Amino acid sequence: MKIALAQLNFHIGNFDQNKEKILKAIEQSKALGADLVVFSELAITGYPPRDFLEFDDFIDQSKHAVEEIASVCTGISAIVGMPATNPNPKGKRLYNSAAFLSEGKVQKIIHKTLLPNYDIFDEYRYFEPNTVFELVELHDRKIALTICEDIWNVEKNPLYTVNPMEELMKLNPDLMINIAASPFNYEQAERRFQVLNHNTEKYHLPLFYVNHVGAQTELLFDGGSMVMNAKGKVVDVLNYFKEDLKVYDLKDVEQSKGTSSITKVSKSALIHDALVMGIRNYFQKLGFSKAILGLSGGIDSAVTAALAAEALGAENVYNVLLPSPFSTEHSLKDAKELVQNLKMPSDVISISDAFESFNETLHPFFKGLLFDVTEENIQARIRGVILMALSNKFGYILLNTSNKSEAAVGYGTLYGDMNGGLSVLGDVYKTDVFELARYINRNKEIIPENIITKPPSAELRPDQKDSDSLPEYDILDRILYLYIEKRKGPAEIIAEGYDQQLVNRILKLVNINEYKRYQTPPILRVSDKAFGMGRRMPIVAKYLS
Amino acid sequence: MKIALAQLNFHIGNFDQNKEKILKAIEQSKALGADLVVFSELAITGYPPRDFLEFDDFIDQSKHAVEEIASVCTGISAIVGMPATNPNPKGKRLYNSAAFLSEGKVQKIIHKTLLPNYDIFDEYRYFEPNTVFELVELHDRKIALTICEDIWNVEKNPLYTVNPMEELMKLNPDLMINIAASPFNYEQAERRFQVLNHNTEKYHLPLFYVNHVGAQTELLFDGGSMVMNAKGKVVDVLNYFKEDLKVYDLKDVEQSKGTSSITKVSKSALIHDALVMGIRNYFQKLGFSKAILGLSGGIDSAVTAALAAEALGAENVYNVLLPSPFSTEHSLKDAKELVQNLKMPSDVISISDAFESFNETLHPFFKGLLFDVTEENIQARIRGVILMALSNKFGYILLNTSNKSEAAVGYGTLYGDMNGGLSVLGDVYKTDVFELARYINRNKEIIPENIITKPPSAELRPDQKDSDSLPEYDILDRILYLYIEKRKGPAEIIAEGYDQQLVNRILKLVNINEYKRYQTPPILRVSDKAFGMGRRMPIVAKYLS
Repeated sequence: MKIALAQLNFHIGNFDQNKEKILKAIEQSKALGADLVVFSELAITGYPPRDFLEFDDFIDQSKHAVEEIASVCTGISAIVGMPATNPNPKGKRLYNSAAFLSEGKVQKIIHKTLLPNYDIFDEYRYFEPNTVFELVELHDRKIALTICEDIWNVEKNPLYTVNPMEELMKLNPDLMINIAASPFNYEQAERRFQVLNHNTEKYHLPLFYVNHVGAQTELLFDGGSMVMNAKGKVVDVLNYFKEDLKVYDLKDVEQSKGTSSITKVSKSALIHDALVMGIRNYFQKLGFSKAILGLSGGIDSAVTAALAAEALGAENVYNVLLPSPFSTEHSLKDAKELVQNLKMPSDVISISDAFESFNETLHPFFKGLLFDVTEENIQARIRGVILMALSNKFGYILLNTSNKSEAAVGYGTLYGDMNGGLSVLGDVYKTDVFELARYINRNKEIIPENIITKPPSAELRPDQKDSDSLPEYDILDRILYLYIEKRKGPAEIIAEGYDQQLVNRILKLVNINEYKRYQTPPILRVSDKAFGMGRRMPIVAKYLS
Repeated sequence: MKIALAQLNFHIGNFDQNKEKILKAIEQSKALGADLVVFSELAITGYPPRDFLEFDDFIDQSKHAVEEIASVCTGISAIVGMPATNPNPKGKRLYNSAAFLSEGKVQKIIHKTLLPNYDIFDEYRYFEPNTVFELVELHDRKIALTICEDIWNVEKNPLYTVNPMEELMKLNPDLMINIAASPFNYEQAERRFQVLNHNTEKYHLPLFYVNHVGAQTELLFDGGSMVMNAKGKVVDVLNYFKEDLKVYDLKDVEQSKGTSSITKVSKSALIHDALVMGIRNYFQKLGFSKAILGLSGGIDSAVTAALAAEALGAENVYNVLLPSPFSTEHSLKDAKELVQNLKMPSDVISISDAFESFNETLHPFFKGLLFDVTEENIQARIRGVILMALSNKFGYILLNTSNKSEAAVGYGTLYGDMNGGLSVLGDVYKTDVFELARYINRNKEIIPENIITKPPSAELRPDQKDSDSLPEYDILDRILYLYIEKRKGPAEIIAEGYDQQLVNRILKLVNINEYKRYQTPPILRVSDKAFGMGRRMPIVAKYLS
């Protein structure tokens, strides 16, 4: 039996396009002699469709699209992820399902048992968990067909009280197929390998694993679909960050020796590739081609511009240098050098006149009061107005350039530099932004060395440095990581050797700035705990604050 | 046996304050001769604590606070909502629980069975559902103690396959107690009554129901705790929108005839009271006292100002009139009249100079191009900069004045009039804003009649009217309601008699403007489907768009 894995980039709710992609892949697989072609979780809708699942019209359209796909499945079978209606009047009205299409019809629908409902996942919001276990049969082979999380209940303290593979093993399957929408983070490919390895080693069955690929707003699906033999060895891995389609003969897989691990890739390389795909897909799927951003001469906007240039083409990245009375000569020079290195369009627009105008307008109210964060924010907001005006007039999407360290402690101006349609670096700590800059420069200097080595500054008052109000970034980032990614409390963080006052101050900053993060753009997610849909905090609270 | 219901306004994560409130209520109840005092769901943490529940430190603090409360429970018992640790290594690590405190100790912990995970609820994100059923005994009375959703599985197509009260009835309880955090919407008090009535009629037991009261950012808890006799009649209802504590003798309740319904209150009155509480608590709990808003002379900002004046005191609501070259004389006049009616502080700050300054700055880039939405947005954004500058300098919270109709179709400027710490009317359709204005004027004219009767306009270009680009609000709002609240598809809406092109255009506007709503302030929720945490949509999608 020959099995094709179709790792495709679907567009949420775009049934026509998703259907066409699936039909084309079926045709290709057929031409390659496949008996079965497997698509990823909720392929027909794109993942995650979120509350569109509450619309009957949306469910009907999914169903019709799958029926149309089924009608071409002659001489080949297909497995397509789709939402299916729960016939039982009790329980949620939908299942997260895999339709087995064969001989021109939907022959069987298998439902997901374990519904992830943590971090970015909300599956129990929509779906009823499966409780009945059965196999799919094709050409005398019995397939244990599961959906994503179904094979992930392998921890020492498992999140679920059921284990679907244990149930399916009672029915004596010959192989495992898992269809997934497993989003990227820089540790996920390795974790995924461990989980697949655990399942194949435990159940002594080969496994065909198909993952979603492509970006869905903030969620980045890295693909990396995989075939494993019954001994936990990797037979093959599909592309990361790109669509792919490959056919495997089950006999070859059964006989293959395979390899013991997947290729190790550096954290910076992974983040780089993920962000480039994230930018590219965001623009493509929204029907835009051109980005605008404010280039300050600092490292965050420089890295954002370089990533955008790779994602969209340098000619499509419009860099606006917006010097204020406090901008330094070297910042302007550094920014211009970057623009030249990448041959990107750019302009210089001084904000001094607008700043003066606001100061005059506000003078009757502010007279006698000192220059403070208000005036810093005015400068950032004027930049926001200018960038948005250019965006509105010419159809750019504004890229946000804030990093995760700033977003965490609220070091940024709401409606100013926190603006944008998409936050590129909002899940990348400052120390990792530096690493990313080095990675971008791995072959030649793209980001001027001076941008990487000079002390970070917002340049919103004379001689300002980030370190005036924040600790050094290596300390800040470590404390933030322990609090945000690892959910450590103050006592545990202090026990790692950090100053008590500093820890308390930073955790307080994180918590009191929740109101700012509530209004920031979607953030491309590269860690296992990003701000946004994966981290849901009350704004009005009094905890460590 | 005497039972006290303590309906209190808790502050999320503010363990010291929540504990003090509970201790004080225990003392009061004791003084009133109560044998048992009942607090609402997750009383010790405030509801909803969201991802703070993932922090061990947060769970430990809850536990210690409840233990301290238990230590004073001598001569009286108490039921306190708290998160409890799941001792089973399988499943989620917490339960949503009710601790029964008696004789100085935590005697028993009862867990919630039905975990709401729809709309604004995320309980399965944190909690394992209960599967073991037991009663609580006090003074020879057996109590069926349940938590909120546990008694709500009464629909024809129930959301859950289990019914906890059916299980508890097998143990022959004498009465029911339900502790809840049931958020307000303008239909919720009636629905809640129906559910309580259903349970008491079905199980022939009296029911003591304690609800949370107070606002938690966008969620408004209206209280309305209730005592019902075994025949489904209402014995008493506690305050709506206010803290309350009352003691009931079980014998009196058993003998009471009660009434068949709760008092009907108009939709506008409910929305009014809810919004006033929402504004007030948002400020109190964040430690602010003063609001700022841009007063345009239109109805949305007028209603927002009137509500804020009631919530915070008129002297704490600073109204800034920000005329542009396109503002009309009558708008300024109407706005000033409102300010005078309520004796609120105000200033007039022209945005003309700043507008001119931006036009000059942008002239090299825009020359030869027509005035379009860009220039409209610049005006709105200048207002945003000025309001935020005043807010930053003097410590105001900016109130957002957008209504639900605008938010739905994207009729507003991101980083402009969509700014604010809190959206007051973001869940109130324009037609309901008019009703609300009439309600505010029920005793005397507060909002000038002209503001209510003139045609709505953004006044961002000469002679602009909302109806230039939008249908009349009664039509628009009805289509939006069917799509947003009722999740109807285009065919169903058209079948109600609306023009096909218009329906398609409006649904498309709603969907393509998801990116704007992603960045708006938290919206006080008054309907059963508000924008924000209760409606989760993909930004990048292609469905009806």
